[in-house]
Amino acid sequence: MKPSDKRKVVVLLSGGIDSTTAFYDASKSYRLCAALSFDYGSRHNHRELPFAKLHCRRNEVEHRIVNLGFVGEHFKSSLLKSGEPVPDHDYDEKSMRSTVVPFRNGIMLSIAAGFAASCGAEGIVIAAHGGDHAIYPDCREAFMAPMARAIEAGTYEKIGLLRPFINHSKADIVRRGAELGIDFAETWSCYKGGETHCGVCGTCRERKKGFQSAGVEDPTLYCE
Amino acid sequence: MKPSDKRKVVVLLSGGIDSTTAFYDASKSYRLCAALSFDYGSRHNHRELPFAKLHCRRNEVEHRIVNLGFVGEHFKSSLLKSGEPVPDHDYDEKSMRSTVVPFRNGIMLSIAAGFAASCGAEGIVIAAHGGDHAIYPDCREAFMAPMARAIEAGTYEKIGLLRPFINHSKADIVRRGAELGIDFAETWSCYKGGETHCGVCGTCRERKKGFQSAGVEDPTLYCE
Repeated sequence: MKPSDKRKVVVLLSGGIDSTTAFYDASKSYRLCAALSFDYGSRHNHRELPFAKLHCRRNEVEHRIVNLGFVGEHFKSSLLKSGEPVPDHDYDEKSMRSTVVPFRNGIMLSIAAGFAASCGAEGIVIAAHGGDHAIYPDCREAFMAPMARAIEAGTYEKIGLLRPFINHSKADIVRRGAELGIDFAETWSCYKGGETHCGVCGTCRERKKGFQSAGVEDPTLYCE
Repeated sequence: MKPSDKRKVVVLLSGGIDSTTAFYDASKSYRLCAALSFDYGSRHNHRELPFAKLHCRRNEVEHRIVNLGFVGEHFKSSLLKSGEPVPDHDYDEKSMRSTVVPFRNGIMLSIAAGFAASCGAEGIVIAAHGGDHAIYPDCREAFMAPMARAIEAGTYEKIGLLRPFINHSKADIVRRGAELGIDFAETWSCYKGGETHCGVCGTCRERKKGFQSAGVEDPTLYCE
Protein backbone atom coordinates (compact mmCIF):
# COMPACT_ATOMS: atom_id res chain seq x y z
CA MET A 1 0.00 0.00 0.00
CA LYS A 2 1.32 3.43 -0.92
CA PRO A 3 1.39 5.98 1.93
CA SER A 4 -1.28 8.04 0.12
CA ASP A 5 -3.70 5.07 0.13
CA LYS A 6 -3.55 4.74 3.89
CA ARG A 7 -6.53 5.78 6.00
CA LYS A 8 -6.03 9.26 7.45
CA VAL A 9 -6.16 9.59 11.22
CA VAL A 10 -5.58 12.10 14.01
CA VAL A 11 -3.73 10.75 17.08
CA LEU A 12 -4.21 11.97 20.64
CA LEU A 13 -0.65 12.43 21.88
CA SER A 14 0.08 13.54 25.45
CA GLY A 15 3.77 12.64 25.44
CA GLY A 16 3.32 9.75 27.90
CA ILE A 17 4.17 6.08 27.34
CA ASP A 18 0.75 5.00 26.08
CA SER A 19 0.01 7.72 23.56
CA THR A 20 3.60 7.85 22.29
CA THR A 21 3.41 4.11 21.62
CA ALA A 22 0.00 4.57 19.95
CA PHE A 23 1.53 7.34 17.79
CA TYR A 24 4.37 5.13 16.49
CA ASP A 25 2.07 2.11 16.22
CA ALA A 26 -0.50 4.10 14.18
CA SER A 27 2.20 5.50 11.90
CA LYS A 28 2.76 1.92 10.62
CA SER A 29 -0.85 1.44 9.47
CA TYR A 30 -2.25 4.92 8.89
CA ARG A 31 -1.38 8.30 7.50
CA LEU A 32 -1.11 10.69 10.44
CA CYS A 33 -2.83 13.99 9.52
CA ALA A 34 -1.90 15.49 12.87
CA ALA A 35 -1.27 14.71 16.53
CA LEU A 36 -3.34 16.59 19.08
CA SER A 37 -2.11 17.49 22.55
CA PHE A 38 -4.28 19.19 25.13
CA ASP A 39 -3.08 21.82 27.53
CA TYR A 40 -5.59 21.82 30.36
CA GLY A 41 -3.48 23.53 32.96
CA SER A 42 -2.14 20.37 34.59
CA ARG A 43 1.04 20.44 36.67
CA HIS A 44 2.85 18.17 34.23
CA ASN A 45 1.85 19.62 30.85
CA HIS A 46 5.14 21.51 30.57
CA ARG A 47 7.00 18.17 30.90
CA GLU A 48 4.79 16.11 28.57
CA LEU A 49 4.23 18.54 25.72
CA PRO A 50 7.88 19.00 24.68
CA PHE A 51 8.11 15.20 24.21
CA ALA A 52 4.90 15.18 22.14
CA LYS A 53 6.39 17.96 20.01
CA LEU A 54 9.69 16.09 19.65
CA HIS A 55 8.07 12.91 18.32
CA CYS A 56 5.96 14.88 15.85
CA ARG A 57 8.90 16.88 14.53
CA ARG A 58 11.01 13.75 14.16
CA ASN A 59 8.24 12.03 12.16
CA GLU A 60 7.16 15.13 10.22
CA VAL A 61 3.65 15.02 11.61
CA GLU A 62 1.76 18.25 12.27
CA HIS A 63 1.44 18.90 16.00
CA ARG A 64 -1.47 20.91 17.38
CA ILE A 65 -1.73 21.96 21.01
CA VAL A 66 -5.33 22.65 21.96
CA ASN A 67 -5.63 25.06 24.87
CA LEU A 68 -8.38 24.03 27.27
CA GLY A 69 -8.16 27.06 29.51
CA PHE A 70 -11.82 26.61 30.49
CA VAL A 71 -10.98 23.43 32.44
CA GLY A 72 -8.83 25.32 34.95
CA GLU A 73 -11.39 28.12 35.10
CA HIS A 74 -14.53 26.03 35.62
CA PHE A 75 -13.50 22.54 36.89
CA LYS A 76 -11.98 21.22 40.11
CA SER A 77 -9.27 18.47 40.20
CA SER A 78 -5.95 17.86 41.97
CA LEU A 79 -4.41 17.31 38.54
CA LEU A 80 -4.76 21.03 37.91
CA LYS A 81 -2.39 23.68 39.20
CA SER A 82 -5.38 25.26 40.92
CA GLY A 83 -6.28 22.04 42.83
CA GLU A 84 -5.11 20.00 45.84
CA PRO A 85 -1.64 18.32 45.97
CA VAL A 86 -1.26 15.09 43.94
CA PRO A 87 -1.51 12.07 46.33
CA ASP A 88 1.52 9.75 46.82
CA HIS A 89 -0.15 6.36 46.61
CA ASP A 90 -0.67 3.39 44.39
CA TYR A 91 -2.73 3.87 41.28
CA ASP A 92 -5.96 2.62 42.84
CA GLU A 93 -9.49 3.89 43.10
CA LYS A 94 -9.38 5.82 46.36
CA SER A 95 -6.16 7.74 46.07
CA MET A 96 -6.29 8.63 42.39
CA ARG A 97 -9.91 9.63 42.16
CA SER A 98 -9.06 13.20 43.14
CA THR A 99 -6.80 13.45 40.08
CA VAL A 100 -9.70 13.01 37.70
CA VAL A 101 -10.52 15.87 35.38
CA PRO A 102 -14.18 14.95 34.99
CA PHE A 103 -15.06 13.52 31.56
CA ARG A 104 -11.62 14.45 30.23
CA ASN A 105 -11.57 11.76 27.55
CA GLY A 106 -15.06 12.77 26.43
CA ILE A 107 -13.90 16.36 26.04
CA MET A 108 -10.64 15.49 24.26
CA LEU A 109 -12.35 13.02 21.92
CA SER A 110 -15.13 15.45 21.03
CA ILE A 111 -12.63 18.15 20.13
CA ALA A 112 -10.56 15.59 18.21
CA ALA A 113 -13.72 14.58 16.31
CA GLY A 114 -14.41 18.19 15.33
CA PHE A 115 -10.78 18.70 14.37
CA ALA A 116 -10.69 15.44 12.37
CA ALA A 117 -13.83 16.50 10.46
CA SER A 118 -12.26 19.91 9.86
CA CYS A 119 -9.03 18.45 8.41
CA GLY A 120 -10.48 15.52 6.45
CA ALA A 121 -9.33 12.65 8.70
CA GLU A 122 -11.37 9.45 8.82
CA GLY A 123 -10.39 8.28 12.28
CA ILE A 124 -9.10 9.22 15.72
CA VAL A 125 -6.59 7.09 17.66
CA ILE A 126 -6.71 7.07 21.47
CA ALA A 127 -4.35 5.04 23.68
CA ALA A 128 -6.83 4.23 26.49
CA HIS A 129 -5.90 0.83 27.94
CA GLY A 130 -6.99 -1.92 30.31
CA GLY A 131 -5.08 -0.62 33.32
CA ASP A 132 -6.95 2.69 33.30
CA HIS A 133 -10.34 1.05 33.59
CA ALA A 134 -10.68 0.62 37.34
CA ILE A 135 -10.11 4.26 38.11
CA TYR A 136 -11.40 6.45 35.34
CA PRO A 137 -14.89 5.75 34.03
CA ASP A 138 -14.15 7.60 30.78
CA CYS A 139 -11.30 5.18 29.94
CA ARG A 140 -13.53 2.11 29.99
CA GLU A 141 -14.97 0.41 26.95
CA ALA A 142 -18.47 0.99 28.43
CA PHE A 143 -17.74 4.66 27.73
CA MET A 144 -15.61 4.23 24.60
CA ALA A 145 -18.14 2.10 22.67
CA PRO A 146 -21.08 4.56 22.85
CA MET A 147 -18.68 7.49 22.40
CA ALA A 148 -17.47 5.85 19.18
CA ARG A 149 -21.06 5.53 17.99
CA ALA A 150 -21.79 9.15 18.91
CA ILE A 151 -18.76 10.38 16.93
CA GLU A 152 -19.67 8.24 13.93
CA ALA A 153 -23.32 9.38 13.95
CA GLY A 154 -22.49 13.00 14.79
CA THR A 155 -20.09 13.72 11.91
CA TYR A 156 -20.84 13.88 8.15
CA GLU A 157 -17.65 11.88 7.57
CA LYS A 158 -18.66 9.06 9.95
CA ILE A 159 -15.37 9.37 11.77
CA GLY A 160 -14.14 6.21 13.50
CA LEU A 161 -12.72 5.95 17.01
CA LEU A 162 -9.73 3.60 17.05
CA ARG A 163 -8.63 2.28 20.44
CA PRO A 164 -5.80 -0.16 19.71
CA PHE A 165 -4.86 -0.77 23.38
CA ILE A 166 -8.29 -0.99 24.97
CA ASN A 167 -7.79 -4.67 25.87
CA HIS A 168 -4.06 -4.37 26.60
CA SER A 169 -2.17 -3.83 29.86
CA LYS A 170 0.47 -1.16 30.51
CA ALA A 171 3.09 -3.93 30.23
CA ASP A 172 1.76 -4.91 26.77
CA ILE A 173 2.14 -1.28 25.69
CA VAL A 174 5.68 -1.01 27.06
CA ARG A 175 6.60 -4.19 25.16
CA ARG A 176 5.01 -2.86 21.95
CA GLY A 177 6.82 0.45 22.37
CA ALA A 178 10.15 -1.31 22.88
CA GLU A 179 9.45 -3.38 19.75
CA LEU A 180 8.86 -0.14 17.82
CA GLY A 181 12.21 1.19 19.05
CA ILE A 182 10.83 3.98 21.21
CA ASP A 183 13.28 5.54 23.67
CA PHE A 184 11.01 5.84 26.72
CA ALA A 185 13.37 8.38 28.27
CA GLU A 186 11.65 10.65 25.74
CA THR A 187 8.23 10.25 27.39
CA TRP A 188 6.74 11.72 30.57
CA SER A 189 4.31 10.32 33.19
CA CYS A 190 4.74 12.05 36.58
CA TYR A 191 1.68 14.10 37.57
CA LYS A 192 3.82 16.39 39.74
CA GLY A 193 5.77 17.78 36.80
CA GLY A 194 9.12 18.31 38.60
CA GLU A 195 12.61 18.25 37.08
CA THR A 196 12.64 14.42 37.11
CA HIS A 197 9.92 11.82 37.71
CA CYS A 198 9.07 11.80 41.46
CA GLY A 199 8.83 7.99 41.59
CA VAL A 200 6.09 7.93 44.24
CA CYS A 201 2.91 9.40 42.75
CA GLY A 202 0.32 7.05 41.26
CA THR A 203 1.45 7.46 37.66
CA CYS A 204 5.15 7.05 38.54
CA ARG A 205 4.33 3.80 40.39
CA GLU A 206 2.28 2.60 37.44
CA ARG A 207 5.16 3.52 35.09
CA LYS A 208 7.71 1.57 37.16
CA LYS A 209 5.43 -1.46 37.37
CA GLY A 210 4.79 -1.34 33.62
CA PHE A 211 8.49 -1.72 32.84
CA GLN A 212 8.92 -4.41 35.53
CA SER A 213 5.97 -6.46 34.30
CA ALA A 214 7.05 -6.08 30.67
CA GLY A 215 10.63 -7.14 31.45
CA VAL A 216 11.86 -4.03 29.66
CA GLU A 217 14.65 -1.87 31.10
CA ASP A 218 13.30 1.36 32.59
CA PRO A 219 15.40 4.34 31.38
CA THR A 220 13.55 6.80 33.64
CA LEU A 221 15.40 8.93 36.18
CA TYR A 222 13.32 8.91 39.39
CA CYS A 223 13.78 11.10 42.51
CA GLU A 224 12.89 8.12 44.74
CA MET B 1 -41.96 18.75 46.06
CA LYS B 2 -39.71 21.27 47.79
CA PRO B 3 -37.19 23.06 45.55
CA SER B 4 -34.34 21.32 47.40
CA ASP B 5 -35.75 17.88 46.49
CA LYS B 6 -35.67 18.61 42.79
CA ARG B 7 -33.08 16.92 40.58
CA LYS B 8 -30.13 19.23 39.92
CA VAL B 9 -29.33 20.01 36.31
CA VAL B 10 -27.11 22.19 34.16
CA VAL B 11 -28.80 23.80 31.13
CA LEU B 12 -27.07 24.65 27.85
CA LEU B 13 -28.24 28.19 27.14
CA SER B 14 -27.19 30.04 24.00
CA GLY B 15 -29.76 32.82 24.24
CA GLY B 16 -31.75 31.61 21.21
CA ILE B 17 -35.41 30.60 21.14
CA ASP B 18 -34.87 26.88 21.76
CA SER B 19 -32.46 26.96 24.67
CA THR B 20 -34.22 29.90 26.34
CA THR B 21 -37.45 27.90 26.24
CA ALA B 22 -35.60 24.83 27.56
CA PHE B 23 -34.20 26.97 30.38
CA TYR B 24 -37.64 28.19 31.54
CA ASP B 25 -39.19 24.75 30.93
CA ALA B 26 -36.47 23.02 33.01
CA SER B 27 -36.83 25.55 35.83
CA LYS B 28 -40.35 24.15 36.40
CA SER B 29 -39.16 20.58 37.01
CA TYR B 30 -35.54 20.82 38.12
CA ARG B 31 -33.19 22.84 40.24
CA LEU B 32 -30.90 24.74 37.88
CA CYS B 33 -27.32 24.59 39.22
CA ALA B 34 -26.06 26.71 36.36
CA ALA B 35 -26.60 27.64 32.75
CA LEU B 36 -23.67 27.19 30.38
CA SER B 37 -23.08 29.35 27.34
CA PHE B 38 -20.25 28.75 24.90
CA ASP B 39 -18.24 31.47 23.24
CA TYR B 40 -16.68 29.85 20.20
CA GLY B 41 -15.91 33.00 18.26
CA SER B 42 -19.10 33.02 16.19
CA ARG B 43 -20.31 36.23 14.56
CA HIS B 44 -23.45 36.29 16.69
CA ASN B 45 -22.12 35.42 20.16
CA HIS B 46 -22.10 39.10 21.19
CA ARG B 47 -25.84 39.24 20.42
CA GLU B 48 -26.86 35.92 22.01
CA LEU B 49 -24.82 35.98 25.21
CA PRO B 50 -26.31 39.15 26.75
CA PHE B 51 -29.77 37.52 26.46
CA ALA B 52 -28.49 34.32 28.11
CA LYS B 53 -27.05 36.45 30.90
CA LEU B 54 -30.30 38.41 31.28
CA HIS B 55 -32.45 35.28 31.74
CA CYS B 56 -30.02 33.85 34.29
CA ARG B 57 -29.86 37.06 36.30
CA ARG B 58 -33.62 37.41 36.28
CA ASN B 59 -34.03 33.82 37.57
CA GLU B 60 -31.04 33.92 39.95
CA VAL B 61 -29.28 31.08 38.16
CA GLU B 62 -25.49 31.03 37.93
CA HIS B 63 -24.33 31.78 34.39
CA ARG B 64 -21.03 30.43 33.11
CA ILE B 65 -19.56 31.40 29.76
CA VAL B 66 -17.11 28.78 28.56
CA ASN B 67 -14.53 30.19 26.18
CA LEU B 68 -13.80 27.82 23.31
CA GLY B 69 -11.00 29.82 21.76
CA PHE B 70 -9.53 26.65 20.28
CA VAL B 71 -12.46 26.32 17.86
CA GLY B 72 -11.56 29.52 16.04
CA GLU B 73 -7.87 28.61 16.15
CA HIS B 74 -8.12 25.05 14.85
CA PHE B 75 -11.49 24.61 13.06
CA LYS B 76 -12.96 25.97 9.84
CA SER B 77 -16.65 27.06 9.52
CA SER B 78 -18.58 30.01 8.07
CA LEU B 79 -20.18 30.44 11.48
CA LEU B 80 -16.85 31.69 12.79
CA LYS B 81 -15.54 35.21 12.36
CA SER B 82 -12.53 33.66 10.65
CA GLY B 83 -14.65 31.79 8.06
CA GLU B 84 -16.63 32.48 4.86
CA PRO B 85 -19.73 34.73 4.80
CA VAL B 86 -22.97 33.22 6.18
CA PRO B 87 -25.17 32.09 3.23
CA ASP B 88 -28.60 33.78 2.65
CA HIS B 89 -30.73 30.75 2.01
CA ASP B 90 -33.34 28.52 3.52
CA TYR B 91 -32.33 26.37 6.41
CA ASP B 92 -31.70 23.26 4.31
CA GLU B 93 -28.89 20.79 3.88
CA LYS B 94 -26.89 22.39 1.06
CA SER B 95 -26.79 26.02 2.08
CA MET B 96 -26.36 25.60 5.82
CA ARG B 97 -23.77 22.86 5.83
CA SER B 98 -20.97 25.42 5.68
CA THR B 99 -22.22 26.93 8.94
CA VAL B 100 -21.49 23.73 10.83
CA VAL B 101 -18.89 23.87 13.57
CA PRO B 102 -17.98 20.19 13.32
CA PHE B 103 -19.22 18.11 16.26
CA ARG B 104 -20.23 21.24 18.13
CA ASN B 105 -22.91 19.54 20.21
CA GLY B 106 -20.48 16.74 21.09
CA ILE B 107 -17.97 19.31 22.32
CA MET B 108 -20.50 21.38 24.26
CA LEU B 109 -22.11 18.31 25.84
CA SER B 110 -18.76 16.83 26.88
CA ILE B 111 -17.74 20.05 28.57
CA ALA B 112 -21.18 20.29 30.18
CA ALA B 113 -20.77 16.72 31.45
CA GLY B 114 -17.41 17.56 33.04
CA PHE B 115 -18.83 20.75 34.51
CA ALA B 116 -21.94 18.95 35.81
CA ALA B 117 -19.73 16.34 37.52
CA SER B 118 -17.60 19.11 38.97
CA CYS B 119 -20.59 20.97 40.47
CA GLY B 120 -22.67 18.01 41.61
CA ALA B 121 -25.45 18.14 38.99
CA GLU B 122 -27.23 14.95 38.00
CA GLY B 123 -28.31 15.94 34.52
CA ILE B 124 -27.71 18.18 31.51
CA VAL B 125 -30.53 19.76 29.50
CA ILE B 126 -30.05 20.41 25.78
CA ALA B 127 -32.67 21.98 23.51
CA ALA B 128 -31.85 20.02 20.32
CA HIS B 129 -35.06 19.58 18.35
CA GLY B 130 -36.66 17.85 15.38
CA GLY B 131 -36.09 20.69 12.92
CA ASP B 132 -32.32 20.57 13.38
CA HIS B 133 -32.08 16.95 12.39
CA ALA B 134 -31.86 17.18 8.62
CA ILE B 135 -28.88 19.49 8.65
CA TYR B 136 -26.67 18.82 11.62
CA PRO B 137 -25.76 15.20 12.35
CA ASP B 138 -24.88 16.04 15.95
CA CYS B 139 -28.45 17.25 16.63
CA ARG B 140 -30.07 13.93 15.70
CA GLU B 141 -31.21 11.30 18.14
CA ALA B 142 -28.83 8.84 16.41
CA PHE B 143 -26.08 10.99 17.91
CA MET B 144 -27.84 12.02 21.12
CA ALA B 145 -28.71 8.48 22.26
CA PRO B 146 -25.14 7.07 22.24
CA MET B 147 -23.80 10.40 23.54
CA ALA B 148 -26.20 10.06 26.49
CA ARG B 149 -24.89 6.56 27.16
CA ALA B 150 -21.27 7.75 26.90
CA ILE B 151 -21.91 10.55 29.42
CA GLU B 152 -23.68 8.19 31.80
CA ALA B 153 -20.93 5.55 31.58
CA GLY B 154 -18.08 8.07 31.59
CA THR B 155 -18.97 9.91 34.81
CA TYR B 156 -18.92 8.59 38.41
CA GLU B 157 -22.25 10.32 38.96
CA LYS B 158 -23.93 8.64 35.94
CA ILE B 159 -25.02 12.02 34.63
CA GLY B 160 -28.16 11.98 32.47
CA LEU B 161 -28.65 13.81 29.17
CA LEU B 162 -32.13 15.34 29.03
CA ARG B 163 -33.40 16.37 25.60
CA PRO B 164 -36.97 17.57 26.16
CA PHE B 165 -37.51 18.85 22.58
CA ILE B 166 -35.86 16.08 20.57
CA ASN B 167 -39.18 15.02 19.03
CA HIS B 168 -40.63 18.54 18.82
CA SER B 169 -40.67 21.08 15.99
CA LYS B 170 -39.54 24.71 16.20
CA ALA B 171 -43.26 25.67 16.21
CA ASP B 172 -43.88 23.40 19.23
CA ILE B 173 -41.03 25.15 21.05
CA VAL B 174 -42.34 28.62 20.19
CA ARG B 175 -45.77 27.60 21.51
CA ARG B 176 -44.22 26.19 24.69
CA GLY B 177 -42.17 29.35 25.17
CA ALA B 178 -45.25 31.55 24.72
CA GLU B 179 -47.08 29.38 27.26
CA LEU B 180 -44.21 29.96 29.71
CA GLY B 181 -44.53 33.71 29.19
CA ILE B 182 -41.17 34.22 27.48
CA ASP B 183 -40.71 37.53 25.67
CA PHE B 184 -38.99 36.28 22.51
CA ALA B 185 -37.72 39.80 21.78
CA GLU B 186 -35.23 38.82 24.49
CA THR B 187 -33.74 36.00 22.40
CA TRP B 188 -31.37 36.02 19.42
CA SER B 189 -31.10 33.79 16.33
CA CYS B 190 -29.40 35.60 13.42
CA TYR B 191 -26.03 34.08 12.51
CA LYS B 192 -24.80 37.40 11.10
CA GLY B 193 -24.90 39.15 14.47
CA GLY B 194 -25.82 42.65 13.21
CA GLU B 195 -27.74 45.37 15.06
CA THR B 196 -31.06 43.66 14.29
CA HIS B 197 -31.95 40.23 12.87
CA CYS B 198 -31.11 40.23 9.14
CA GLY B 199 -34.28 38.30 8.23
CA VAL B 200 -32.72 36.42 5.31
CA CYS B 201 -30.08 34.03 6.69
CA GLY B 202 -31.06 30.42 7.37
CA THR B 203 -31.68 30.88 11.08
CA CYS B 204 -33.71 34.07 10.58
CA ARG B 205 -35.91 32.27 8.03
CA GLU B 206 -36.32 29.36 10.43
CA ARG B 207 -37.19 31.82 13.23
CA LYS B 208 -39.85 33.55 11.11
CA LYS B 209 -41.37 30.22 10.05
CA GLY B 210 -41.39 29.00 13.65
CA PHE B 211 -43.61 31.88 14.75
CA GLN B 212 -45.83 31.58 11.65
CA SER B 213 -46.33 27.83 12.10
CA ALA B 214 -46.95 28.23 15.83
CA GLY B 215 -49.50 31.00 15.27
CA VAL B 216 -47.60 33.14 17.78
CA GLU B 217 -46.90 36.82 17.12
CA ASP B 218 -43.27 37.41 16.15
CA PRO B 219 -41.85 40.34 18.18
CA THR B 220 -38.55 40.31 16.25
CA LEU B 221 -37.28 43.39 14.42
CA TYR B 222 -35.90 42.19 11.06
CA CYS B 223 -33.87 44.21 8.51
CA GLU B 224 -35.74 42.52 5.65
